[in-house]
Amino acid sequence: MPAHNSKFCREHFDRFFLRQVERAIAAFHMLEPGAPVLVAVSGGKDSLAVADVLDRLGYQVVGLHIDLGIDTGDFSAASREASVRHFARLGRPLHIVSLREEFGRAVPEVVRRYSRPCAVCGLTKRHLLNEFAWRHGFPAVATGHHLDDLSSTLLANVLRWDVKYLRKMVPALPAGDGMAAKIKPLAFLTADEIRTYVRFRGIEPVQGNCPYSPEAKFKRYARLLDEIEEDSPGTKRAFYGNFLRVAHLFTATAPPADEPGEGADVAPAPAGADGRPADAYVPPELPLRHCRVCGSPTPSEVCAFCRIWRPERVPA
Amino acid sequence: MPAHNSKFCREHFDRFFLRQVERAIAAFHMLEPGAPVLVAVSGGKDSLAVADVLDRLGYQVVGLHIDLGIDTGDFSAASREASVRHFARLGRPLHIVSLREEFGRAVPEVVRRYSRPCAVCGLTKRHLLNEFAWRHGFPAVATGHHLDDLSSTLLANVLRWDVKYLRKMVPALPAGDGMAAKIKPLAFLTADEIRTYVRFRGIEPVQGNCPYSPEAKFKRYARLLDEIEEDSPGTKRAFYGNFLRVAHLFTATAPPADEPGEGADVAPAPAGADGRPADAYVPPELPLRHCRVCGSPTPSEVCAFCRIWRPERVPA
Repeated sequence: MPAHNSKFCREHFDRFFLRQVERAIAAFHMLEPGAPVLVAVSGGKDSLAVADVLDRLGYQVVGLHIDLGIDTGDFSAASREASVRHFARLGRPLHIVSLREEFGRAVPEVVRRYSRPCAVCGLTKRHLLNEFAWRHGFPAVATGHHLDDLSSTLLANVLRWDVKYLRKMVPALPAGDGMAAKIKPLAFLTADEIRTYVRFRGIEPVQGNCPYSPEAKFKRYARLLDEIEEDSPGTKRAFYGNFLRVAHLFTATAPPADEPGEGADVAPAPAGADGRPADAYVPPELPLRHCRVCGSPTPSEVCAFCRIWRPERVPA
Repeated sequence: MPAHNSKFCREHFDRFFLRQVERAIAAFHMLEPGAPVLVAVSGGKDSLAVADVLDRLGYQVVGLHIDLGIDTGDFSAASREASVRHFARLGRPLHIVSLREEFGRAVPEVVRRYSRPCAVCGLTKRHLLNEFAWRHGFPAVATGHHLDDLSSTLLANVLRWDVKYLRKMVPALPAGDGMAAKIKPLAFLTADEIRTYVRFRGIEPVQGNCPYSPEAKFKRYARLLDEIEEDSPGTKRAFYGNFLRVAHLFTATAPPADEPGEGADVAPAPAGADGRPADAYVPPELPLRHCRVCGSPTPSEVCAFCRIWRPERVPA
């Protein structure tokens, strides 16, 4: 592990991994000891790893898996299966929300109308996780975001200097009006380190990627950072870690909201910048109201989630 | 010019170029109309272009060329020649400071002792420019830094989030205690645009690069940004331009000072990070004093310039 200038045997790698998570939790006041935590479980390596390590550290892990109904290559079925298998092994409860059962349609039917499928999917997952956490009184929602995710998202946001997105790049966002706290316990571990952890622990994540391939631009930032990291090990850690030392400069009062773009991790491209129309983009400083359909916080009358998934209940 | 979504004929390119400089000067209050300005003249395309355009816009251009005494490939002789030739054509005064004549030694003899020759050279040029401007009462020192320089330096600094360097990335730094104002009138023009301007104007800059090749890391950031720019034209402009909208967040009171690292454009690597010892690095918050040898502002007793170039006058 060149970024740490260390080599570990299996046992010490495990200790290192757990300690990194413990430190992140303590440093950013993510959870009280033994607290319940709702883990966002996609079935991929990151979400299974964060559930695993939080369980081992004594937190009361409850999983929420959202079945997106993506049938290409049985992607959603395999993801669900991997999630169920791991939670059975942990002996912890896993809740499943199936979009098709709940809303009569799923991601393939819905994303056709949008230019950025990942934005729709992200918005959907954030909404359902937040709603579940809020209704059941979880102190926080944990996601498997890791250092590679965070540093490439940070690079994307820094290239635009959008303060509204920069200020949300911290590994723990406090609860706000209708919003559960969001925590990223793997924030200081790399994708490679998680891959190693998963292998050592015999965890079996879903194989393969979502057929709605991730946005190319995003992958490119990750690749650029990989190049720099290879030449200068520790760059990602320094980039994200030093950002956290100055993140307070970007802090203002507006809480994250629930619109594509708002609440998302990356600032949406301005209209036309990619030669594509931007998805519905709501200016940053609107005061939050409550969705007339579901009651969740939103800058508009009806939240983006309900406009997508409950169009029949949206007042004309 | 994909970043501007435009094509120009020769005449309109010229207007575009001049207007970009006029706008930068006005927006950042760089110079009063017709003011004298000291231009840092290396003999490369950027410095000859900035001298040329400032002259055409009616400023009283005076050049200062520093002969670094680099004889590999006659680099310094050719640079001096290109500078003299262009200023003769402009009919404007060019002052020349020869390190070898002035200090009895030049860059090749001095940089051998340092791991980062570019840092020594940058420090030397900044010191001499500042001293000359200050002594002769120039309201500002203009350099040929362009958008590619500034965006890659910004990327280097943002990867470290060093607020002290970020706050100096604005295109105009005001005069301070013993420090002349520094302006970058080409801040919003790319290297390619300057190349085109120079060709259209029949300017003949020095060919070839300094034999003490520029630091590899720095070039890499420029290359990475070039890649992103190619996919998303306008990225560099947006990156630097949007930074300027938030740069006030990084602003504090400490003026730039005269140490390798201090006063430089890029934060020095922390000791050992590159497997090399960092050059003498002075922590950021030291109060400025005046050099006991030359009187220029410095955080130490004797400034770095005098320690390098006037070692015989440094008290033991």
